[in-house]
Amino acid sequence: MARIVMKFGGTSVANVERIKNVARHVAREVNAGHHVAVVVSAMAGKTNELVAYTRETAPLHDAREYDAVVASGEQVTSGLLAIALQEIGISARSWQGWQIPIRTNDAHASARIEGIDPAKLLERFKDGQVAVIAGFQGVAPSGRITTLGRGGSDTSAVAIAAAIQAERCDIYTDVDGVYTTDPRIVAAARRLRRISYEEMLEMASLGAKVLQTRSVELAMNHHVNVMVRSSFEAPEDLAPALAANEGVVGTLVCDEDEIVEQQIVSGIAYSRDEAKVTLLKVEDKPGVAARVFGPLAEANINVDMIVQNISEDGRHTDMTFTVPVADYERAAKVIESAKAEINYKDLRGSTDVVKVSVIGVGMRSHAGVAARMFTALADKGINIQAITTSEIKVSILIDAAYTELAVRTLHSVYGLDKT
Amino acid sequence: MARIVMKFGGTSVANVERIKNVARHVAREVNAGHHVAVVVSAMAGKTNELVAYTRETAPLHDAREYDAVVASGEQVTSGLLAIALQEIGISARSWQGWQIPIRTNDAHASARIEGIDPAKLLERFKDGQVAVIAGFQGVAPSGRITTLGRGGSDTSAVAIAAAIQAERCDIYTDVDGVYTTDPRIVAAARRLRRISYEEMLEMASLGAKVLQTRSVELAMNHHVNVMVRSSFEAPEDLAPALAANEGVVGTLVCDEDEIVEQQIVSGIAYSRDEAKVTLLKVEDKPGVAARVFGPLAEANINVDMIVQNISEDGRHTDMTFTVPVADYERAAKVIESAKAEINYKDLRGSTDVVKVSVIGVGMRSHAGVAARMFTALADKGINIQAITTSEIKVSILIDAAYTELAVRTLHSVYGLDKT
Repeated sequence: MARIVMKFGGTSVANVERIKNVARHVAREVNAGHHVAVVVSAMAGKTNELVAYTRETAPLHDAREYDAVVASGEQVTSGLLAIALQEIGISARSWQGWQIPIRTNDAHASARIEGIDPAKLLERFKDGQVAVIAGFQGVAPSGRITTLGRGGSDTSAVAIAAAIQAERCDIYTDVDGVYTTDPRIVAAARRLRRISYEEMLEMASLGAKVLQTRSVELAMNHHVNVMVRSSFEAPEDLAPALAANEGVVGTLVCDEDEIVEQQIVSGIAYSRDEAKVTLLKVEDKPGVAARVFGPLAEANINVDMIVQNISEDGRHTDMTFTVPVADYERAAKVIESAKAEINYKDLRGSTDVVKVSVIGVGMRSHAGVAARMFTALADKGINIQAITTSEIKVSILIDAAYTELAVRTLHSVYGLDKT
Repeated sequence: MARIVMKFGGTSVANVERIKNVARHVAREVNAGHHVAVVVSAMAGKTNELVAYTRETAPLHDAREYDAVVASGEQVTSGLLAIALQEIGISARSWQGWQIPIRTNDAHASARIEGIDPAKLLERFKDGQVAVIAGFQGVAPSGRITTLGRGGSDTSAVAIAAAIQAERCDIYTDVDGVYTTDPRIVAAARRLRRISYEEMLEMASLGAKVLQTRSVELAMNHHVNVMVRSSFEAPEDLAPALAANEGVVGTLVCDEDEIVEQQIVSGIAYSRDEAKVTLLKVEDKPGVAARVFGPLAEANINVDMIVQNISEDGRHTDMTFTVPVADYERAAKVIESAKAEINYKDLRGSTDVVKVSVIGVGMRSHAGVAARMFTALADKGINIQAITTSEIKVSILIDAAYTELAVRTLHSVYGLDKT
């Protein structure tokens, strides 16, 4: 009998009717003979409501109390799903983070899981009982409730899957898998049957908000097979499709070597959360990068793309970098207050930019991916403002007005369009 | 430094603004040099919402899951009040039932507190920290969350007060104390400065819904001084009144011998939650009461007043008793299905009755209280349908239409009207 973990997000448990639908999904897996642990988020909107209460009480507040307040949302859904399962004849009980326990460090509001003792869950599996686990939470060494940060239920699910050595960790969400790009932009976008952890990490951190980044890292480290699938199909309707499809309707996130027919490029991601800062005529001498980026690091501002040109006179350079939109004004202030040390002529910035990325582990063994990208964009008259590359991706910064054109062009150029 | 417990109900913590007001009440006691434990209910309406979720999920559901769901309401308010206290410079932390722990039996949804270890709370008191405790909940020997039944936060507060040997347990509510009767009926009703546990028990169980009955029993057993007071006055405005009034603005529920000027009658209570059942021409022979009330007890129906007349022929009697309104139809069915064994001619019932009670420990040493009651009601033309008495109360059952007239008449007759 295989062990599997099923995780349901906030929209999948948004009301009692949907919780009952989730129970039917769980019943399908139980009836297939599996031992099942279910991880649930809070009802959609509940976490935001609780966070708003804490902010209204005090803008700056004790993260330990924030955790006590906010973790209650998952407590509610775990109990309700256990009731819904029992109602359709499935043995089940709810588990809070502290009851298992899911041990975390004491970094309240963004705690990291340090260990999960699976003994109690495995014991109940023997009796055929489904474990319904409150996601997003754990317990600190002090005995206080912790939460894992937004989207943390994905991480809970993967960590539980690793702890119980689950065959699969199914992440049910409001989309039915990971697509080659955003289907709202490219009608011809295809659902991927498989994607490697590395590619998923790039997709997740670049704006394809299907899985929380940390959960993918965790899955990669523990070789947990993660399946992204939709909770909105009726559980019964899914059964024939599952049978016809090797049990797979969704996207499997797995080790690279489990993907037989690897494409060179797997997907096109984009992120609007980019702001560009350009420093004109920076004095070009050793240590200048440290003088620019040191103060930004101290201010806890995450710098992403960095481009430095050689200027014509050989003594000055122009320097461009990007930061998250939310940090843009703060970044400009930090730089301006260090103007004397940095020694630049002018600062220019823009939030009207977008980062578009081409992602694929196949790039490792195939040259020319980037060149093809630049040619295709040039053909459409799209100007590239900055470039970064890694082993498995090429990212460019362009004028935001060209977002859709660029994504559609690249999707087609790399042969990702649905046939 | 005295230890005190302060308990705030759902209407007192109904929103963030009110929670901040509660924090100012707590600050007043901290600034007066007290060590304070605060017990909070869920925000008004929250518990009902959570209960409704569990019922919508399954009409009959696992009480252990009900408890996990419903206890989350107090978790939220405990965290928010801790934040509100910190915000005004008061050291505070929240405690869930399982963290202290508040140990209960495993009677989920109506658990009884079996013990509270005060060590952690007392340790924090030394550092001047306020303990903000989620009311209404504890932890079973199994490690699962339990709740104490509706109104259980009063019981939590008194139990905490007993455990930390508090000088006083202040129950903040939406009224400013216990009145001689319902002020909505009798404008001249007075707030009592003190009332004995025994009287309060009669007042509480007879429909004056200020304190949960179990909390009063617990207070009586552990000699906890309970103060009923209002949370809606501004904490600052209260200070001079408190100073002028021996620190007392409210009603102190205490041992009888702490009440110096004991009145014969302390209050008039009434309850509309009564239904009357009369069995006509019951065969009058030994064992008939057992045949009537045995089946009712088995059906878990609580019988209150019982009146049995001697009938004229010496072989038959009429028997009248009362049950809670909610159980009325069920009680009638139980009796009818046992008609052959009981052997009666006819069953008549009415829910159009009210029980009015005169309460006072002074009755123990003063004769004639009941006689005065009957005379006063007769003077007003009010017919008495049944009577029960205890050491400290006389209750009568009358036509509900006379409720206000009866209460006003008795309030005046026993000299309780405000002068």
